[in-house]
Amino acid sequence: MQRTRLIQAFRNFLPAESVLAATEDLRPYECDALSAYRQLPMIVVLPQTEAEIAEILRICHAEQVPVVARGAGTGLSGGAQPHAEGVLVSLAKLNRILEIDPLACSARVQPGVRNLAISEAAEVYGLYYAPDPSSQIACTIGGNVAENSGGVHCLKYGLTVHNILKLRVLTIEGACLEIGGDALDSPGYDLLALLTGSEGMLGIVTEITVKLLPKPETAKLVMAMFDDIKKAGEAVANVIRAGIIPAGMEMMDKITIHAVEDFIHAGYDKDAAAILLCESDGLEEEVADEIRQIQAILTASGAVRVDTSRNEHERQRFWAGRKAAFPAAGRISPDYYCMDGTIPRKHLAQVLQQIEQLSVEYGLRCMNVFHAGDGNLHPLILYDANQPGELQKAEDFGARILEICIAAGGTLTGEHGVGIEKLNQMCLQFSDAERELFHALKSAFDPSMLLNPGKAVPTLHRCAEFGAMHVHRGTEKFPEIPRF
Amino acid sequence: MQRTRLIQAFRNFLPAESVLAATEDLRPYECDALSAYRQLPMIVVLPQTEAEIAEILRICHAEQVPVVARGAGTGLSGGAQPHAEGVLVSLAKLNRILEIDPLACSARVQPGVRNLAISEAAEVYGLYYAPDPSSQIACTIGGNVAENSGGVHCLKYGLTVHNILKLRVLTIEGACLEIGGDALDSPGYDLLALLTGSEGMLGIVTEITVKLLPKPETAKLVMAMFDDIKKAGEAVANVIRAGIIPAGMEMMDKITIHAVEDFIHAGYDKDAAAILLCESDGLEEEVADEIRQIQAILTASGAVRVDTSRNEHERQRFWAGRKAAFPAAGRISPDYYCMDGTIPRKHLAQVLQQIEQLSVEYGLRCMNVFHAGDGNLHPLILYDANQPGELQKAEDFGARILEICIAAGGTLTGEHGVGIEKLNQMCLQFSDAERELFHALKSAFDPSMLLNPGKAVPTLHRCAEFGAMHVHRGTEKFPEIPRF
Repeated sequence: MQRTRLIQAFRNFLPAESVLAATEDLRPYECDALSAYRQLPMIVVLPQTEAEIAEILRICHAEQVPVVARGAGTGLSGGAQPHAEGVLVSLAKLNRILEIDPLACSARVQPGVRNLAISEAAEVYGLYYAPDPSSQIACTIGGNVAENSGGVHCLKYGLTVHNILKLRVLTIEGACLEIGGDALDSPGYDLLALLTGSEGMLGIVTEITVKLLPKPETAKLVMAMFDDIKKAGEAVANVIRAGIIPAGMEMMDKITIHAVEDFIHAGYDKDAAAILLCESDGLEEEVADEIRQIQAILTASGAVRVDTSRNEHERQRFWAGRKAAFPAAGRISPDYYCMDGTIPRKHLAQVLQQIEQLSVEYGLRCMNVFHAGDGNLHPLILYDANQPGELQKAEDFGARILEICIAAGGTLTGEHGVGIEKLNQMCLQFSDAERELFHALKSAFDPSMLLNPGKAVPTLHRCAEFGAMHVHRGTEKFPEIPRF
Repeated sequence: MQRTRLIQAFRNFLPAESVLAATEDLRPYECDALSAYRQLPMIVVLPQTEAEIAEILRICHAEQVPVVARGAGTGLSGGAQPHAEGVLVSLAKLNRILEIDPLACSARVQPGVRNLAISEAAEVYGLYYAPDPSSQIACTIGGNVAENSGGVHCLKYGLTVHNILKLRVLTIEGACLEIGGDALDSPGYDLLALLTGSEGMLGIVTEITVKLLPKPETAKLVMAMFDDIKKAGEAVANVIRAGIIPAGMEMMDKITIHAVEDFIHAGYDKDAAAILLCESDGLEEEVADEIRQIQAILTASGAVRVDTSRNEHERQRFWAGRKAAFPAAGRISPDYYCMDGTIPRKHLAQVLQQIEQLSVEYGLRCMNVFHAGDGNLHPLILYDANQPGELQKAEDFGARILEICIAAGGTLTGEHGVGIEKLNQMCLQFSDAERELFHALKSAFDPSMLLNPGKAVPTLHRCAEFGAMHVHRGTEKFPEIPRF
């Protein structure tokens, strides 16, 4: 029997506690943070070295068994969901920081290192790693690479792909590739971005060289209250139009403000229809200058109140509400479903209005808290899984939001990935030719389709079915999506 | 006869003057700026629309005829060299700026638009396009995408790949792909970087959306003279170590200083062993602060003289010498061969010393003028093509420099691409597994290998032969390369 043979093969070079096969041992791996989808893997292995991973891959390749890699399991799109007949490779034990080079401003780390641990280790050199997903205490850099994670500060500092230099990657055959380099450019095809955000479909990353940045001398945060969310959306556009790229620019709507203020007491004005948080970081003089400009633009854009943090404590307090938005949602609703779509900034007000209409249509509340500067929405759909049909309604509502984002010229993910959650919407986002090319690229890396099968790129068959399903709702394909 | 049939097929939808087949009409297309390699194409076509390019590709695909795309022909590695039995597609007539969006800070342009023309058109909005290759007056954005071009300011602002948002690309079958998007992240595999720098091997780019940046308020240039090139190399490291990313950081050695000062009279000190130019741009206060820091670090690093531009005129004068380095080489030597390798900054002094030794060994002078900040060397090997054997010696010398760069942990190209010039060194840069993957990726896009065949990625056979050739010079593979 294949399962027994595999367990035996893995135990030949891994300690017994690193090869899990009993149901109770597999349970912790059955889902990532998108907990609505659950699946036990056949076997879980916990290698500690690149050589061990290579051997695992060679065995799985020889046996033609699917392989799913897993970081900390904090993903929100089901990218790390196990395969029922597959091996789940946890990278948790590859958790060493191998080297910090303060001259090159880089760190070489293993995939299981936590995001925040890199900045903590680099602090002694006055350096840090910029991308800061909300889960940065827990999530690992390997998972960040797989999902191309962002964070509050990615408006100014970019996503994971903009902050890594080099990867060591194992192919499904167990061969090692070195991708990227220390120089700005490298010859041959640029595979660094292709691998980043590829959701474990092309290879398993065993080592990452990340860029480190000098810690900014200072940071200040402007908090602006608006009596109309459209004015707040316009204010975002006005700041960018003035040539300012804030370190972060976050927006919260009324329902979010109430939820977090009752919870955290960050000092948000509960009469506001929207709050905009706008951060500047850098040298003292530069920040002072930029903050003055931001204050003037927000006031001219119709903010009813503009407060600026007077010290680090106050800056942290202003941020505290925003950072507590997800747990605050958990306080006012039994369940919530976090979406992740991105739209051109200019359509912000219009898309928020459409979400509002859908909220009425589905009879579900929706908190809007998002990275306004880069147009990355995170609508939190509030529902109660114990009410029959509400989960389905929440999922439908979420899918409609993604379709609105696509119709607005945006994309169906800002930083959470496609995983299993957004497969259908990939049919809308890309043409047949584009999806066929994706499959051809996947084949170039993994001809037998063993790495994380069924994720990220839908089959042509699935898209045909999804199209047919949509036709039933109207007279032609996707007619319900208003085009801008 | 295929040639006649193709000409007829093209003339069915292109005006007669856009289908060239007479030898005298083909002559201007026989090489790019790497003029040592020449080849006439079978036919040249000059389409004016994307639909025309798609039709050309469909015809070539049906006839299984190679296709080479060409921008302005300013490339330095032979990437646009025609194929003897192929069709050369000039993109010169797709030269319109389609849209400038000052709010999104982006411009949508056709591939034949000149690099500098984008900044000229954006100037009215206070915006510009950052990458500035030396050839920016002439080179086109389509060629910049194909080669992932850099420039003096890419240390701070990145290469082409960091400054584009979206591409429209035609496959060899004539299908249109939209790649990238207006948002920071996009779902599916990230193909934007894969396409950028792919040297026309994967598709033909028909439209590019580039990022525009706000023009800096001011810029100042520090010019530092050193009596020892090692100290200058160390100074570069010290500036970066202090957390400063200058807008540009360029170095010239003694022979370059003499050549340009005699030519341009930029005010360079001819007693200096090396000159470092270090620019800061941004807000007035920010620049003043950064310039003070740079002056202090360069002085502490042993600069014998540190001058700072007092006005825009002086800044331009200090730059003038650096910018005239290539024509200055032409004044002191009948021919020169420009190389392009990149090394980790910390090995700068050591690699320069090795180049010096090779210069003695080959009996050829070499001017070193380069993007010091990002370790991108541009050695100019001086030779006389009329002296029998000198071209060959210059090429061997150049190849050795690339091999030294690779051995130092660097790469064989900084911004000029591989083309046909550096195919052999690609065998050293990448492992068999890596090159096999490159070929598999090429197949995913272009299974019949019709797009720009023979460029950028060497065949396994060629690498085997190159390996064998190197064995003859020593006892094992590549023994002459000192490892760091």
